[in-house]
Parts: sequence; structure tokens; C-alpha cells
Amino acid sequence: MKRLRYMVDHGAFKGWITEGGAAVELRRMALNEVVQMYDHSLAVMLGAHYFLWGGAIQFFGTKRHHDKWLKITEDYGIKGCFAMTELGHGSNVRGIETITTYDPNAGEFIINTPCESAQKYWIGGAAKHATHTVVFSQLHINGKDEGVHAFIVQIRDEEGNVSPNIRIADCGHKIGLNGVDNGRIWFDNVRIPRENLLNSVADVSPDGQYLSAIKDPVQRFAAFLAPLTSGRVNIAVSSIYISKVGLATALRYSLSRRAFSLAANEPEVLLLDYPSHQRRLLPLLAKTYAMSFAGNYLKSIYVKRSPETNKNIHVVSSALKATLTWHNMRTLQECREACGGQGLKTENRVGHLKGEYDVQSTFEGDNNVLMQQVSKALFGEYIATQKQNRPFKGLWLEHMNGPSPVIPAQLTSSILRSSQIQTDIFYLRERDLLNRFVAEVSAHQKQGRNKEYAFSLSYQLAEDLGRAFADKAILLTSIEAEANVPAGPLKDVLALLRTLYALVILEEDASFLRYGYLSVENSAVVRQEVIKLCSEVRPHTLALVSSFGIPDAFLSPIAFDWIDANSWSSVQQ
Amino acid sequence: MKRLRYMVDHGAFKGWITEGGAAVELRRMALNEVVQMYDHSLAVMLGAHYFLWGGAIQFFGTKRHHDKWLKITEDYGIKGCFAMTELGHGSNVRGIETITTYDPNAGEFIINTPCESAQKYWIGGAAKHATHTVVFSQLHINGKDEGVHAFIVQIRDEEGNVSPNIRIADCGHKIGLNGVDNGRIWFDNVRIPRENLLNSVADVSPDGQYLSAIKDPVQRFAAFLAPLTSGRVNIAVSSIYISKVGLATALRYSLSRRAFSLAANEPEVLLLDYPSHQRRLLPLLAKTYAMSFAGNYLKSIYVKRSPETNKNIHVVSSALKATLTWHNMRTLQECREACGGQGLKTENRVGHLKGEYDVQSTFEGDNNVLMQQVSKALFGEYIATQKQNRPFKGLWLEHMNGPSPVIPAQLTSSILRSSQIQTDIFYLRERDLLNRFVAEVSAHQKQGRNKEYAFSLSYQLAEDLGRAFADKAILLTSIEAEANVPAGPLKDVLALLRTLYALVILEEDASFLRYGYLSVENSAVVRQEVIKLCSEVRPHTLALVSSFGIPDAFLSPIAFDWIDANSWSSVQQ
Repeated sequence: MKRLRYMVDHGAFKGWITEGGAAVELRRMALNEVVQMYDHSLAVMLGAHYFLWGGAIQFFGTKRHHDKWLKITEDYGIKGCFAMTELGHGSNVRGIETITTYDPNAGEFIINTPCESAQKYWIGGAAKHATHTVVFSQLHINGKDEGVHAFIVQIRDEEGNVSPNIRIADCGHKIGLNGVDNGRIWFDNVRIPRENLLNSVADVSPDGQYLSAIKDPVQRFAAFLAPLTSGRVNIAVSSIYISKVGLATALRYSLSRRAFSLAANEPEVLLLDYPSHQRRLLPLLAKTYAMSFAGNYLKSIYVKRSPETNKNIHVVSSALKATLTWHNMRTLQECREACGGQGLKTENRVGHLKGEYDVQSTFEGDNNVLMQQVSKALFGEYIATQKQNRPFKGLWLEHMNGPSPVIPAQLTSSILRSSQIQTDIFYLRERDLLNRFVAEVSAHQKQGRNKEYAFSLSYQLAEDLGRAFADKAILLTSIEAEANVPAGPLKDVLALLRTLYALVILEEDASFLRYGYLSVENSAVVRQEVIKLCSEVRPHTLALVSSFGIPDAFLSPIAFDWIDANSWSSVQQ
Repeated sequence: MKRLRYMVDHGAFKGWITEGGAAVELRRMALNEVVQMYDHSLAVMLGAHYFLWGGAIQFFGTKRHHDKWLKITEDYGIKGCFAMTELGHGSNVRGIETITTYDPNAGEFIINTPCESAQKYWIGGAAKHATHTVVFSQLHINGKDEGVHAFIVQIRDEEGNVSPNIRIADCGHKIGLNGVDNGRIWFDNVRIPRENLLNSVADVSPDGQYLSAIKDPVQRFAAFLAPLTSGRVNIAVSSIYISKVGLATALRYSLSRRAFSLAANEPEVLLLDYPSHQRRLLPLLAKTYAMSFAGNYLKSIYVKRSPETNKNIHVVSSALKATLTWHNMRTLQECREACGGQGLKTENRVGHLKGEYDVQSTFEGDNNVLMQQVSKALFGEYIATQKQNRPFKGLWLEHMNGPSPVIPAQLTSSILRSSQIQTDIFYLRERDLLNRFVAEVSAHQKQGRNKEYAFSLSYQLAEDLGRAFADKAILLTSIEAEANVPAGPLKDVLALLRTLYALVILEEDASFLRYGYLSVENSAVVRQEVIKLCSEVRPHTLALVSSFGIPDAFLSPIAFDWIDANSWSSVQQ
């Protein structure tokens, strides 16, 4: 809170709520990313107030809410939080159990927590600080459940006293993010004015009639969640910055730490001069570069969003949020082990960041659920092309309209380094997996199972397909970024990294062998090439991690002179 | 320290040092395992004193040390620690830089820390508590470096004052194990009596002559490290107990937590009734069962050890220490994600145990280094059979003496469930990888590279081979455990778990496809079978995790009635 207040006092959030447009949004994201690298708790605290509370007022509210809340929110004159998740319902928001009814005589809504599993849970800022919240609740009007709606409730006064008929408790100690006061909230028939309904999608008239322009409750619910995409975009992008912190640290350490000599009386060998150590870290570096380009692309389409592109952004942000956050945890774990015991010291950050960022794989959409949504969206597009008798469009699926790509029978080093061949193999995988997935789900449906049940049975193909889509998106955005660089040594290094990325995916995902996209012989060629690529990236390592531009103070002692940092004289300071 | 003192006061360690034999050792290990499940810091604290300090006195010392130190060590009358690792040298113990010389006039050794990288580092117990330590140091006699030796040094008096010419500092905050006071030690020409050399392997006469029955310094060094095997055995076995804690928690939660319904107006589905959730957790359960049998086997050969079996125990314990600890971290991560946000709460243990146990993959032998030693040992045995013109013996390598096993061309469900077929496929993989590894290393050697350099180049095959050996050991010990159970439902469930273990290895390790041990068609059959096996294990899940016998108090709220545990009434208590 002190850090957040310091930033407020120095005007860091000026214009964050009251100004708009792509340039402002990008600037906001950039500051958020820097804060994430410094202190994840601080980023989540400001995110809960500005992005979630502030975003809810902006997107779900109308003029009366904007006039009343936007300016004071930007100035941090009130402290907002976002009460969506409940003890019993996280990913499945439609199933939340909080109930709101309307009293036409008083012109008030009555919000109630009917059972323990309906308590609001994980609400960032709620345990100690927040004064206001947006509550998500089922809205019951005249005995009918109209689905999930959002309401403004004051939960504390200016002195921090909890409001009447509200109970609050702390979520307790966590493995990370303890700078965030995650809280639990119970509502005991709390009364709020009718005007506190955030009514951009639906409203209740003073006499208690339910009014909405969107008749289908499923569509109404989707309209509600669309603005939450910004959370996924932020998470995806910030996770890649954390991978950069981990890799910059572990790779710099591997360029100064030695272990074992390979022959008698020879000096010990630098960790990064072991081919096996190169294989542990350099593919993660290549992936991080590729995913960083994908993250930039995601930001660029997000800030240019329109109602027409929302669905595509949802799919891309879901795939990248899951893929990049999983990659981050895997990268941090490998970096921590590659640093040996030093990776366990809190001051060296690599290990500590694991606990701080672990939350990303399950919050604002569980990764597994998000990846299933990707496959379902691809399934939906496939069925739509058939039903509407139209070509595939969007999500880089246009390749489905042409013939199946042909991969050369004998792969060689130079063939494998062609971006066209890499793209073709990735396309081939996605195309075949999508065909298989549609066929398998359809077969289940023909046996009388409903679509959701059929999806749940075809989870293996759904997972393979989701991964294929994400990998393809990353490869294509990477190739695009490379294309924008003029010919020269930088472009060559980017091509090297892109090829290492593509080939490591070919090596690691068994689906290339499992479905025959790669023969046993070609797979061996790929594997040899990965060793070679690692040795070619090796001389560029220091330049590549330096180019992340992370200030020294954001790294850790083992990234620099770790012997000096551990010296007796440093103890005495 | 309070917990440790409580156990001492209640006689928990009676006989731990002064009694011996297999039964006593197994009892000691059992208590250690229970303590690990309760508090890893406590286990490491008692391990540093009893196993490391106590073991060093027992194994490296002779009668004069035994008479003086064993009884008082058992009674915790002094507090011992074990100063081997240095800032600059962990896995490569032979490279440590602490230097000890001998002064024949005074009859004293002089121990010195010549540079900052030679400071002792990570010494458990040293920062605050320990009064004595075993120091590992290069021994320089008459200008010649005789290699690493061990010496007893008092580092604090009874009141806790640090001894003269010794400086001590804390290693600082860590991501886990903060109940252990890991410390750093500098020696400023500390003088100790000649008798403090632990002289079971080598000695220095009063007039300064170096005496050792083992002339080869490499062999002498190996004799020194052999007793450390007990550490690896303890780590391997305890990591599996922690996997059990994680799985018991996550699986119990998955049997009470629901999310989403698959059709309108139907109740939400239990997490474990989703095939994808079964696939996430049940293979880890099957692996944990198989590895638990392997751990028991490892303990049984360790307590019956003899000079003839030491080498085999070294190889098996190295392979299992690495495999089981990696499995544990992967299991905890999957369990934490499978519990959603609840997995992040410290009280729910699953996430917290990650930070507490992460250390296991790099301490007492870095996992990657240990796995390389496994492959090198298999290489050595292969070369020995050729040079000595003898069959393979030990390490379950006798299958190498017969013809290559033949796998049926068309695998079916019933064929895949045969333990003989499973064994044959695992043998085939190991056999082929060993042949390939020897051929590749030999080819490098023929090009003039020395053996160590050749090994470092062939790391891909070395890793595949090490994994193949470990998987085989786990499968065979699992089959043996199953064979000891009389026919009936228990045996049937064990067979189911063993088959799931074997088939998940077939599915996950790309080497089966990469080297053609499985055809594309058979690999698809394996994958379908894994889905089926998961659904067959599903009804037994609660019984299987209950049979771990973990007391309820060692699990966590989400393993039981997590709604009640989160109720408002529990807040008020």
C-alpha cells in the first residue's frame, strides 16, 4: 500500500481512467509491466483498483456511474475492488450463488450471501483496504433468475470501518503475493440504491421490471465478460517479462560460474559451455523471444479492438495467457535449478518469483479451461465454414482453405531453417488435429452425447490442438517481427532464435511423431539441429539477455559478481 | 530448534548413533520420513546433526573419535554440522579450495579459507546453533596436495560464542526451509590438534608424514563419499511421501469440488469425473505407487549394503534420487494447479511444500549430475563386459546377455497389460539406448576427444539412457512388490496401477517413438489405453490415497470439508 500510495502521489496514474485511446493504453500497459518486474503484489493491487474496479465502472456502467466514480477512482480517492469469485465458484462464474433481489417500495436492491460457498473469495484489496467493490450476483426479479449482474457496494467508510451488514475476513497466508490483502466478503441482506446496478447491458426499472436489449442470457453473460480480456492480455505479457528476469539471471550466472574440468589440470568449465546446459536454457531463451513478439502482437490487436475482433482477441488472448504463463513457470523452475542452491535464495529472485507468479496459471481463467475454449472456438469456426459454406477466416486459419502442405521427405539443416517449411509443418499439425478433433467430437455426438460431454471426452485432441494453435500464433508473430527488421546481423540472430524456437517445439511435442508429421529419421535430424543451434546461439547469449533492457537493480547478485556479493565485507555492511 | 529439542527430550533419537543393524536403520529412516511430512526444516536439522555430522564421525573417524563423540552426539550434548560445500564448489567437491596444512612442531593442523569462493556455504545449523563441524579441506603435506580430507573443528562454545579465528554469517532468506539456519564459515588459520583428522582412510604422523592404505587419490576420494549415499536414499524416499501428501490433498479435493455442468439444469460435475482431470492426476498417483515400491527396495538394499554392493547402490540411489525428486516437484505443481486458488494457500500445504522441497533436486548431488553418473556407470559396465569378456551382471542388466526382446507388431489392450510385455519394451529401450550411447561416445573418443569431453557431447543419449534405467528399475521393483501380494482384489488394483505407470511412461517419453520402439499405430493404442486405465482407477481413488496412511492432521483443510473450514464461524474461533 505504501508503494501504491507513493505512485499515486507522484502522478503515475494520471489519465489512467479518464483518458483513452491506443497510445494511452499501451503506455498504461508498459508501466504495469515494469511494476510487475519490480513487485507483483504492487501490480496486482493497482490492477484490482484501476483495471478491475475502474474497468467495471467504465465498461459495465453508464453515464451516471462514470460521472460519479471515474475521476475519484483515478485519483485513488476511494479504493475499489472486484468481487466476482466465490469460495465455490471460480472459473465457472455463471454458477455463482450470491443472490440479489429488488424492493420496488424502497427502490433498493438487496444483496445476500445465502450459503458459505457463496462467500466472495480472493478479492484483492478487500481484506484490509478497499472502500468500494463491484459485486457480481445472480439477479432475481419477480422470482426469475436473470443471470449474473454487477452492483456497486460500499464496504468500508473512510476510516476503514466495515459497513453494516457486511462481514470481511482475510484469505490467509499464501505462497506468494502476500503484499495483496485478498479477502472474503459475506453480504447479509445489504441494501443499495437501484442506481448502483451497472446497467450498460441490462437495467431494472423503478417499479421492478427487468429490461435488457440482449434477450439471450448466454449472450448477455458473454457481453459482461468481454471487458475482462484486458486482464488476460496483461497476464500473458507480464509473464514473459518475468521469464526474461529469470533467464537474464540464470544465463549471466552460467557465464561466470564454473564446475568440473573435462581433463586433468585444465580449468573448470563455464556452465554455459556444457552442451547440456545450453540445451537446458537456450531453447527457453528462444521461446521467450518468440513469445515476447507474440505478446506485443496481442497488445497491438487489443488496443485496436472492435466488436468485430472481440472474439478473435478472446481466442488469441486465452491461448497466449495459458501458454506464456506455463512457459514462465517452467522457465523459472529450470533457471532456479540451473543456478543450483543460489536459485533458492530469495535475494536471487529466480526461485522467489516462482511463488509470486504461480497464481498466473489459474487466475483470471484457469489455463486448462482457457485452452479448452481455444479448441472449442476452432471447432466452432470449422462447423461454421461447413454450415455457411464459406472459407475459414481469422485466427490465421486461412491455410485450411488450401491444399495440405507437403513437407520434404528428407529434412536437412538448411531446409529446417526455412521459415516457410517451419510454418508448413506447424500448419500441417494444426490442420490435421482440427480435422481429427472435429471428427472425434462429431462421432461422440452421433452416439447421442451432447456437445459439452463430447468435448470432455475428446480432451487429448483438444489439448494437442490448443497447443498447436498457440505455437502457430507464436511462430507467425515471430516471423512477422523478424520481417520488420532490415537485413543485417540483428535479423540473422532473430532468424536463429526463431528457428531454435520452431525446432524445439518439433522436438518436444510428441504429436509431430505421434501423428506422423515427422518421420523417425527426420525427427533425428531435428534433434541434431537443436544441438547445433544451441551452439550457434551461445556466443550471442550475453547480448541477447542484455537487450531485454532490464535495469541491473531488477536482477540479482548472482547475475553479476556473486563472489563479491557474498564476501565477508558485504556481511559487515 | 524447539521441535528438535522436544524430540531429544522425549528420547526420539535413543540408539540412533550407538546402535546399528538393518532393523535399527529402517526404524531411523521411518521416523525421518514421518518428520519430513510434518516439517522439512526439522528433518534437515536432525539430518545435519545425526546423519551428516554423526555419520562423518562414524564412517570417516576411528576409535578415538568414536569414543569421544558418538555418545554425546546421540544425546545432543553438542550440536554438529557438516561443512563440505563452498560458495564456489557444490557438486564438484574435489574442487573445494579450503586448505589445511600441518605444523609438526605444534602437532596441529592449520585450516584456512584462502579466498572468498572458499567460504563454506549452505552449512545447515552453522548460522546460529552448531557447536562443532566436520570441515572438508584440501590437505597439503610437504607442499603436496593429498586431496580432500575431513577434520573436526569446534566453531562455538557452549554459550554460543563463535570460536576465535572463525567468522560466521547467515545464508539469508530462502524460498523454503527457513527453519534451517544455513550458514557460511570462514577459517582464519584455525589451529586444531592432529587427532582431529578423521583418519579412517588416511592419516598424518606426528612428524608430518602422509599415510594412506589407498594410494590412488581418486579411489581415496570415492571412499570418502561412499557413506554419503544415505543422504540420497533419505531424499529419494522422503520425496515420495511428499508426493503422497500432495496427491491425497488434490484428489480428495477433486472428489468434493464441482465445476461446470455438462448439460442445462444438471448438477455441476465433480472435478475427478472429468476425463481430463483424471488424466492430470491419476497417472501421477500410479507413478507415486510405483516409485514408492522402488523407494522401499532402495532402503532394503541400502541397509544390507556391503563393499561389494556399494557401487550398485550408488547407481540406483543416484537414479532414484533424481527421478523421484523431479517427480515430486512435478506432482506438487500439478496438484497445486488442480486445486485452483486453494492450492496457493499456505494452510493447504500443496503449494507451500513446493518451496520447502524444491531444494531436493539440487542438494546432495545435483540431479542432472547424478543422472550423468548413471549413464557413465552403464557405459563402464558395458566396456567392462567387452574387456573382460564376461556377461553383464547387476543393475538388472542381465537382459543384455540374451537376444533383443521382440515386441508384438500389433499391440492390444490385453497385450499392453502384460507385465512381461511392459518389461520387454522397457528392456528394449534401455538396450538400444545403451548400444547407441556407447557407440556415440566411442566415436567421439576415436576422433581424439577424451572420455569426459565425449560424455559431455553425448548428453542427449546420456539423458535418455539414464531415464530408461530409472524407469526400468521402478517398473521391476513394482512388479516384484506386486508378486508378493496374494491373488485377490488388492493384487488386481496393484496390477492396474503398474500398467498405468508403464503405459504413461510409454506415452510421455518421446524416445519410444523417436527410436522406433513403438510404431505410430501402437502409440495410438497406448494412448487410448491410458484413458481407459484412468477411468478404471477412478473408483479406487479414495481408497488408494487413504491407504497411504497419512494422519488427517498432516493433510489440509481442502482434503476434507473445505466449505466448513472456510465458514464464518471458523473465522471467529
